[in-house]
Amino acid sequence: MTEEHYIGVDLGGTKILAGVFDSEYNCKFTDKNKTKAELGYKAVMARIIETIRGAAHLTGIDVASVKGVGIGAPGTISADGTQVLFAPNLNWRDVPLKADLEAELGCPVWLGNDCSVAAMGIHRSEFNSEPNDMVSIFLGTGIGAGIITNGVFLNGATHAAGEVGHMVLDPEGPLCACGTHGCYEALASRTAIFKKVKAAVDSGEKTMLVDEGGKPFNKIRSGKLRRAVEAGDKLATKVLDETCYYTGIAIANLCNLLNPEVVALGGGMIEQLHETMLPKIKEAAAVRTMPGARQVKIVATKLGDHAGITGAAILAQDNA
Amino acid sequence: MTEEHYIGVDLGGTKILAGVFDSEYNCKFTDKNKTKAELGYKAVMARIIETIRGAAHLTGIDVASVKGVGIGAPGTISADGTQVLFAPNLNWRDVPLKADLEAELGCPVWLGNDCSVAAMGIHRSEFNSEPNDMVSIFLGTGIGAGIITNGVFLNGATHAAGEVGHMVLDPEGPLCACGTHGCYEALASRTAIFKKVKAAVDSGEKTMLVDEGGKPFNKIRSGKLRRAVEAGDKLATKVLDETCYYTGIAIANLCNLLNPEVVALGGGMIEQLHETMLPKIKEAAAVRTMPGARQVKIVATKLGDHAGITGAAILAQDNA
Repeated sequence: MTEEHYIGVDLGGTKILAGVFDSEYNCKFTDKNKTKAELGYKAVMARIIETIRGAAHLTGIDVASVKGVGIGAPGTISADGTQVLFAPNLNWRDVPLKADLEAELGCPVWLGNDCSVAAMGIHRSEFNSEPNDMVSIFLGTGIGAGIITNGVFLNGATHAAGEVGHMVLDPEGPLCACGTHGCYEALASRTAIFKKVKAAVDSGEKTMLVDEGGKPFNKIRSGKLRRAVEAGDKLATKVLDETCYYTGIAIANLCNLLNPEVVALGGGMIEQLHETMLPKIKEAAAVRTMPGARQVKIVATKLGDHAGITGAAILAQDNA
Repeated sequence: MTEEHYIGVDLGGTKILAGVFDSEYNCKFTDKNKTKAELGYKAVMARIIETIRGAAHLTGIDVASVKGVGIGAPGTISADGTQVLFAPNLNWRDVPLKADLEAELGCPVWLGNDCSVAAMGIHRSEFNSEPNDMVSIFLGTGIGAGIITNGVFLNGATHAAGEVGHMVLDPEGPLCACGTHGCYEALASRTAIFKKVKAAVDSGEKTMLVDEGGKPFNKIRSGKLRRAVEAGDKLATKVLDETCYYTGIAIANLCNLLNPEVVALGGGMIEQLHETMLPKIKEAAAVRTMPGARQVKIVATKLGDHAGITGAAILAQDNA
């Protein structure tokens, strides 16, 4: 019998990552490309297809022969799973991604929200579906999550659950892109860090987080932040500490509400900085978690960058 | 065939309420007594029995003939359902309430946490178990909740879920009894209101919320607060507005995380003040809830004071 393959795609605002998986969730080969969202929907779709074909080519298989392709997209997916309704980082509204990709690829395609899909990947592949109650939080440009309660993924009444980034942690805090003050995302995401660094540099503070002209970076990648923290840069350490503090508070809130067995952390910042961040996050969480819920295990996902493609391949396998 | 009866008991720090129910969750008769927790476990147990017998007597039935008694207790219940492990308002630790009551009553008894039991009562009796995702929040001396996700009551990994009162809403806020700063309960409960009133009176502010000697009340009952708000008392209005504001933020956080169909509010403050509070709570919640989750219905439970006894009777019926 021929081996069955599934392809998982993590479609991000910056890059597209695709991986070919067997039915045991083992990743065979991956390929990646920049997203170049500014080129528009048709161009990005072509780059998704190129990335999928690249990973299939490395594996030595034909895309039309795979059982299915799963896509984790950074936005809201329609209830019937055919469209990306809104993806602000890609500037997409109501695009029929499923049908468009199926027409090009000649195999079935399924869409999911990127954080939901990655959370499913971690729960199934890294934790063997064992925790009945689990939260996965992803820290990057934004902050998203996936919640499992009573062993089942939580979609909520209208598929809008898991917006951990928009939990208010300080009603007088900075304005969030959503229009609310003091959301966790506005206090702790990489975007929040970038704004804090910009304000500090503008007011004359010294830091490594500047370009050769002494101006704050346009974007701060997690790797640059890590190198600055490792070099003892005071501003970088301070802003990262604040992210750990608010992440600990957010986790304590989730533990008091949901009493999970496991909180798994992922996303670019955790991938680069978990050794520095995890002890600080755990400390801030522990003192605010009720005694009955303190058994929680707070971990960085071992899947790292592969959480999204693993979950997307699982999405395909579950539906195929 | 003889009609089946179940007795539900709401055991509070101040009063004990017992009700006799038929198998359709209709309440026949109720009886109540003061708890007098200061008299100790044996005395309180005798008062529970007296209240149960009182309700049975009014109904014209014998307690030994009922199918079961359910008790909602203000504390942590052991995993096997036999003991109240910790009930700070009653000053109880590790008391074998189930066995002690069964020996006296001659019928089976089941224990549950008061907020969990009341939330089940509202979900089953008021909403016909229809919402798959629902949160009930109870505002009184403390703040508790019961969460239903994917149609199932959420206990969490170690039966510690639902501690909505210990969600941090302001990390620099007032110290909570749990040791954390800025818990929702420390910002918005009746206990928080009492502290705010005391501080204001101590600093010379005028208010109706004082006794004849001009001292702040030792305890502020919800009815007194309602009368002061209705009379236009500025301090009473201000502290109640703050409770509505933080309750709206807490509800928005829950909607963004769990995307429920319904948020039902109960407890003494809501029973007395829902007409004033509900519009303010809804306003504070709506602006902080993500568009995808704004379909939520925020309501005051119609069961009022009977939520606890209804849920406790259901607990008995489910187990009998």
